[in-house]
Amino acid sequence: MKALYFEGRKARVIGAPEPRARAGYAKVKVLVSGICNTDLELLRGYYGFSGIPGHEFVGRVVSPGSPLAGRRVVGEINLACGRCSWCAAGLGRHCPRRAVLGIVKHPGAHAEYLTLPEPNLVPVPDSVPDEEAVFTEPLAAACEILEQLGSVEGRKTAVLGAGKLGLLVAQVLAQAGAEVSVFGRRPEKLRVARRLGLDARPAPARAPRAQFDLVVEATGTPAGLPRAIQMTRPRGTVVMKSTFHGLARFDAAPLVVNEITVVGSRCGRFAPAMELLARCAVQVGPLISAEYSLSRAPAALRCAARPSAVKVLLRP
Amino acid sequence: MKALYFEGRKARVIGAPEPRARAGYAKVKVLVSGICNTDLELLRGYYGFSGIPGHEFVGRVVSPGSPLAGRRVVGEINLACGRCSWCAAGLGRHCPRRAVLGIVKHPGAHAEYLTLPEPNLVPVPDSVPDEEAVFTEPLAAACEILEQLGSVEGRKTAVLGAGKLGLLVAQVLAQAGAEVSVFGRRPEKLRVARRLGLDARPAPARAPRAQFDLVVEATGTPAGLPRAIQMTRPRGTVVMKSTFHGLARFDAAPLVVNEITVVGSRCGRFAPAMELLARCAVQVGPLISAEYSLSRAPAALRCAARPSAVKVLLRP
Repeated sequence: MKALYFEGRKARVIGAPEPRARAGYAKVKVLVSGICNTDLELLRGYYGFSGIPGHEFVGRVVSPGSPLAGRRVVGEINLACGRCSWCAAGLGRHCPRRAVLGIVKHPGAHAEYLTLPEPNLVPVPDSVPDEEAVFTEPLAAACEILEQLGSVEGRKTAVLGAGKLGLLVAQVLAQAGAEVSVFGRRPEKLRVARRLGLDARPAPARAPRAQFDLVVEATGTPAGLPRAIQMTRPRGTVVMKSTFHGLARFDAAPLVVNEITVVGSRCGRFAPAMELLARCAVQVGPLISAEYSLSRAPAALRCAARPSAVKVLLRP
Repeated sequence: MKALYFEGRKARVIGAPEPRARAGYAKVKVLVSGICNTDLELLRGYYGFSGIPGHEFVGRVVSPGSPLAGRRVVGEINLACGRCSWCAAGLGRHCPRRAVLGIVKHPGAHAEYLTLPEPNLVPVPDSVPDEEAVFTEPLAAACEILEQLGSVEGRKTAVLGAGKLGLLVAQVLAQAGAEVSVFGRRPEKLRVARRLGLDARPAPARAPRAQFDLVVEATGTPAGLPRAIQMTRPRGTVVMKSTFHGLARFDAAPLVVNEITVVGSRCGRFAPAMELLARCAVQVGPLISAEYSLSRAPAALRCAARPSAVKVLLRP
């Protein structure tokens, strides 16, 4: 099968053997996959990754014996052990023995086929097209903020970064009742934000001080955290979404003096995200910057790395 | 009057005019003051401070018209405006217009006299001697963690740093039911920790990974935060207590991937701290490394800066 392959800092399309589904796993034919910022960070050395990347996908189950055979599915990316206390608590996303699709010890979705454990698969309602379903994983990561913080109703909120994740986070928080402003650097992305009905503002050279109850850091860069801390009012909350290769550096004094809480936030459950897509409570169409065939994946990665790009999709 | 004076990175004892109490303020004759790590950081450039430092004290009210005239008192260090929404919410500690005793725009306690607004003063019960009462402010900062986190009952907790603040934090959390281990580098301080009945361990070269529900960072150095994050289990909490001059630097990925919450924590209310002292629920005597007269304050600062020192007191 065709697959995108990362080795060191090189990306190329290779011919790879089709994966075989172990017992309890299903084989899935990928229909569409999405390029995430994490994929780009893997190419920059994050996790010392080599292999087939990709963890955002929609596909069709082709294992004949699977209970979901023939169904369109998306899939949770954490392959948990199923036996530890984290798994027992429904938090397989934190299972210490987990593999992660396209990130840790399990080949990913930028390929013609992938395998996942049956319990990871979530059927896609017929009303949700492939190009929307492929956003379930990042949208679940956005919904995770609600699971961690509880109500955000009426909270004055800044989302830093008008990229792929920032625009999903902003929509999720807005539909949950937060008073959201999105700050971004690129006019193209701010235009997308406005098409989504969001209050979008150019990131000022000097960030406003202590103005927001909640600031979500989704810039994808080490510069985001100190800015987020500065913008948060005393006793307010920063949600840190960015993962990047390299060290964050910041003046810790405002964090301590203003008693700010920084909440690290990663993957989320798929069900709430799928529900938002099914009832059109968030829009993902305007986030699609480009679609490439898998054989042109290196060009797609270059496109996705452009500062003006939002989401780039791949079709095997 | 005699007073310690910081100018740039120089500390000297000067003859200064006695402060005059404005309307609503009381003049206090200092009986004992305590050297805090923040004082040492001010000398290293933190806050660009110059003036009379010191914010830990016990003294006697000498303003004849004060309702507390003649009483022994300690004092909250934040001089709030009393009119903003923060003050109205009982959080004058975060009032944006506040001055801070011995830190921001208000002369401090390493002097024969100081002034504070009457509402900042808290009477000291007769049963609590000066040498204990002078710990009220840092003990209140330790109690603040309970106010921020709520119950810590049964939580597996690491306190990083067996210094002045770390040993108070460890005792406060232990008496509130947490299962506390203190990690420190200096054998002298670990011995003090053990005299306090605490489980004290030498900080290992490689910190244990993901072992603790709660980690309190009280090392006073930029190296503490990454270590604290590493030691915290997924979805656990780091409380950041250290303030220092310079930048914290850390790999943000474990924070995000393990969804750790970092809570900045600063000053606390005095009442719970005084109550702990009054009922001997924490011990502060073993923390006193040395006592100096105010005229020998530069020697006292050198003593307090020694890695083996815990608390150093000054007597005007």
